[in-house]
Amino acid sequence: MKFSELVRRLQATQFELAADPEIEAITPIEATQPQTLSYIEGSMFAARIATTTASALILPLEAELQAAATAAGLAWIADAQPRQLFAQAIALFYQPYRPTGIHPTAVIDPSAQLGKAVTVGAHVVIEAKVRLGDQVCIHPNVVLYPETQIGDRTVLHANCTIHERTQIGADCVIHSGAVIGAEGFGFVPVPAGWLKMPQSGYVILESQVEVGCNSTIDRPALGNTRIGRGTKIDNLVHVGHGCQVGEDCIMAGQVGLSGAVQVGNRVIMAGQVGIVDHVKIGDGAIASAKAGVHSDVAAGAIVTGVPAIPHRLFVKATAVFNRLPEMYQTLRQVQKQLGIERK
Amino acid sequence: MKFSELVRRLQATQFELAADPEIEAITPIEATQPQTLSYIEGSMFAARIATTTASALILPLEAELQAAATAAGLAWIADAQPRQLFAQAIALFYQPYRPTGIHPTAVIDPSAQLGKAVTVGAHVVIEAKVRLGDQVCIHPNVVLYPETQIGDRTVLHANCTIHERTQIGADCVIHSGAVIGAEGFGFVPVPAGWLKMPQSGYVILESQVEVGCNSTIDRPALGNTRIGRGTKIDNLVHVGHGCQVGEDCIMAGQVGLSGAVQVGNRVIMAGQVGIVDHVKIGDGAIASAKAGVHSDVAAGAIVTGVPAIPHRLFVKATAVFNRLPEMYQTLRQVQKQLGIERK
Amino acid sequence: MKFSELVRRLQATQFELAADPEIEAITPIEATQPQTLSYIEGSMFAARIATTTASALILPLEAELQAAATAAGLAWIADAQPRQLFAQAIALFYQPYRPTGIHPTAVIDPSAQLGKAVTVGAHVVIEAKVRLGDQVCIHPNVVLYPETQIGDRTVLHANCTIHERTQIGADCVIHSGAVIGAEGFGFVPVPAGWLKMPQSGYVILESQVEVGCNSTIDRPALGNTRIGRGTKIDNLVHVGHGCQVGEDCIMAGQVGLSGAVQVGNRVIMAGQVGIVDHVKIGDGAIASAKAGVHSDVAAGAIVTGVPAIPHRLFVKATAVFNRLPEMYQTLRQVQKQLGIERK
Repeated sequence: MKFSELVRRLQATQFELAADPEIEAITPIEATQPQTLSYIEGSMFAARIATTTASALILPLEAELQAAATAAGLAWIADAQPRQLFAQAIALFYQPYRPTGIHPTAVIDPSAQLGKAVTVGAHVVIEAKVRLGDQVCIHPNVVLYPETQIGDRTVLHANCTIHERTQIGADCVIHSGAVIGAEGFGFVPVPAGWLKMPQSGYVILESQVEVGCNSTIDRPALGNTRIGRGTKIDNLVHVGHGCQVGEDCIMAGQVGLSGAVQVGNRVIMAGQVGIVDHVKIGDGAIASAKAGVHSDVAAGAIVTGVPAIPHRLFVKATAVFNRLPEMYQTLRQVQKQLGIERK
Repeated sequence: MKFSELVRRLQATQFELAADPEIEAITPIEATQPQTLSYIEGSMFAARIATTTASALILPLEAELQAAATAAGLAWIADAQPRQLFAQAIALFYQPYRPTGIHPTAVIDPSAQLGKAVTVGAHVVIEAKVRLGDQVCIHPNVVLYPETQIGDRTVLHANCTIHERTQIGADCVIHSGAVIGAEGFGFVPVPAGWLKMPQSGYVILESQVEVGCNSTIDRPALGNTRIGRGTKIDNLVHVGHGCQVGEDCIMAGQVGLSGAVQVGNRVIMAGQVGIVDHVKIGDGAIASAKAGVHSDVAAGAIVTGVPAIPHRLFVKATAVFNRLPEMYQTLRQVQKQLGIERK
Repeated sequence: MKFSELVRRLQATQFELAADPEIEAITPIEATQPQTLSYIEGSMFAARIATTTASALILPLEAELQAAATAAGLAWIADAQPRQLFAQAIALFYQPYRPTGIHPTAVIDPSAQLGKAVTVGAHVVIEAKVRLGDQVCIHPNVVLYPETQIGDRTVLHANCTIHERTQIGADCVIHSGAVIGAEGFGFVPVPAGWLKMPQSGYVILESQVEVGCNSTIDRPALGNTRIGRGTKIDNLVHVGHGCQVGEDCIMAGQVGLSGAVQVGNRVIMAGQVGIVDHVKIGDGAIASAKAGVHSDVAAGAIVTGVPAIPHRLFVKATAVFNRLPEMYQTLRQVQKQLGIERK
């Protein structure tokens, strides 16, 4: 694709065609090649302009960077949101694989309702009364339990499992091995051990939700587990029964939510965070990597540590933690000098 | 179902029929509707009796609550174990889906032995010499490696994998994506890197064990990995090769056991707990969420933190941890006042 | 097998045939039986020589142990690397199950290229232009997305998923439920929420890599995620998009790597370790169990804690942490005695 064609398709308004190079691929800035487009962001990459072997760059709206690129003979596009433009550029060169048609080995119950242009891969199993929206795409070896509902354009990747009492909205992506709607972990202590609490509730994923590989979202005894519109969940995340997660949240890899956690909108949970049952997290809060959240978190707060405390306090206390051995010695010396008995 | 019928089926002895309402569903106390049964437990819910829209309640044996419910015109059942009664009530309204018969697309080796009334879903693969007890229920896309044994009434959910050298007892539930009996993580350092230790041992799950979605239980080089009767394991839990877990334990989400851990009976491991290899945990001990257990834990002990220490000590030490910045300043002032040199 | 035959097959040079017993199995030293071979290593097991019911032992090169075994009438083999010899001995008695041939229910695209002696289990799905080396072994219900490449003798266990843009080398083992090459977790914040960054990069596993059950290795937006030759990955591990892991590393259960982490050779990451994005770990470094690594780690360093610090410092600081309550009291007493105001 000619660079000028790329500019046209991206509807860019600020650009320099230079020699209008042929663009064959997008490359990371560390490994550029001729006839590729790459991406420069921030001061630390500015030095790359002089040395890159790429033929074209995506730049932020910085006149100095643009001038340097032009001087280096590079074609470029600039945008106030260069990262977003970069994503759109990659999408021009690469679209993930989608199966086509309905594979003859798929087992589809006659009572299932399929929308228009649904694709179903080999060995998929669709049980009774399942309802699939238009353009739903199901990769091989997926299993849908009875009466599940999948919204328009949602993609289910290979080997994922959608359990009964699950409703998935439109434009969602469920990655391989994810399990949505399985029985929550509810047991009642009885003299003979543990009595299973039947899990008769629902799991509801609103639209534009993404669930990572091998992540699990359980259904509750009653009521529902809900993931709000636009929330993105990474791999190996566990969402317990009855959790209510808001919109546009980010849950990074290996995060775990116990039961009945309430998470607001635009909350960010970094990798390996754990949240104790019934805790409430306010809108826009951030839980740092590995935080263990035992009590409610206010909107906008940043918490860190186990148990999680305000991030700034954690940073200060941790700095002192690393000096505890010397503090201990100093305090001993103080005790000695003051004649305070050692405990 | 009439409330009187529900009372009869639950064999309740303490109840108030009121207008003997029709009960159509069970609802959580936060979201009751007319013609539903709900559940009230503990002081914090007592206020709900006046405001609930439910037609009937399950109550504990508290005369005051019962009188309030009667005064509000509600039907009710009371029991010394109301949570258990609630579980039994839900089971009257909801039973999870089970496939029926043996699906023609299942691939079952002729040498496999199937008990009475076994159900096998679509695309299941049962390899040579597998033995299934009576009423075993296998959902679609499950794979059983050769010579595995599954006890009576055990349920295997979609997409789980049972590896060779695995024996699963009666009345177990293996949830979707779980992998039982795969090769343990055993490698011997050699000059060229890591030599694989063959994993020729067994995994034994006793009866009434539940294994959560995408959890993994590995087989050892020799001997066995054993999970005791009635132990319940949540999602994304890892049990390493050679672990011995007792009866009626609870392992919450994302718990990890290294190799050869020995866990007693009725031990509770909260979410994201990790236990170092060869550690022994005594009967009835509790490891709090995110604890990292590096050394043996006595029966009945409660441990917290990384490395895990007695819970009470952890709570006290953590309270001081949060005051470390001020302690550090105070100690500096003390040093100055006493003329002690700064280290 | 006669013990003398076993000696011959293991090419052992130091041994004592004794009565040349028949060896029927290998047993762990805690549970020996007659006509079995067991393994003794280190001082703590020496006492077992007098009491073991095994007929033969593998010993280290310690004359005292050998003399004791001979005196006890036991056959034995001794080696400078007894653990390695033990692994080789087990392999004489046990080889894991491999399917044979190509099962008629497997769905293999005509454009796929299969090497010699490939075995493919039931209900496997192999999409277009997949390339399989010689003697590749694929267990049931595995899915290979289009254009994936699998090297000679690599084994894919049941229910694992290999996504597009994945290249797996020779002699690898991918365990059940693992997902290799799925889309990395990349989203750009936009006013409407999160825009998906297309993940057009590759995942490359070099030769002799092992990936545990339900572990996930994601592909990046550009470039590749790479796992070096001989690296062994345990169960439920997450490797984020763009990570570069060196050769002969060990990643224990539930380890998580964020995006673009750079790990050297022979690095050991213990259970539940988490590594923040873009961090660099030097050759031979060790991250202790549950460590949270937020900054670069030098070659050969051992780090512990969250955030991770040098292991020795962590041990010392933790010892003081456990005494914080008494330190706090002491410091209060000091303040009082010196008339320093309480903050």
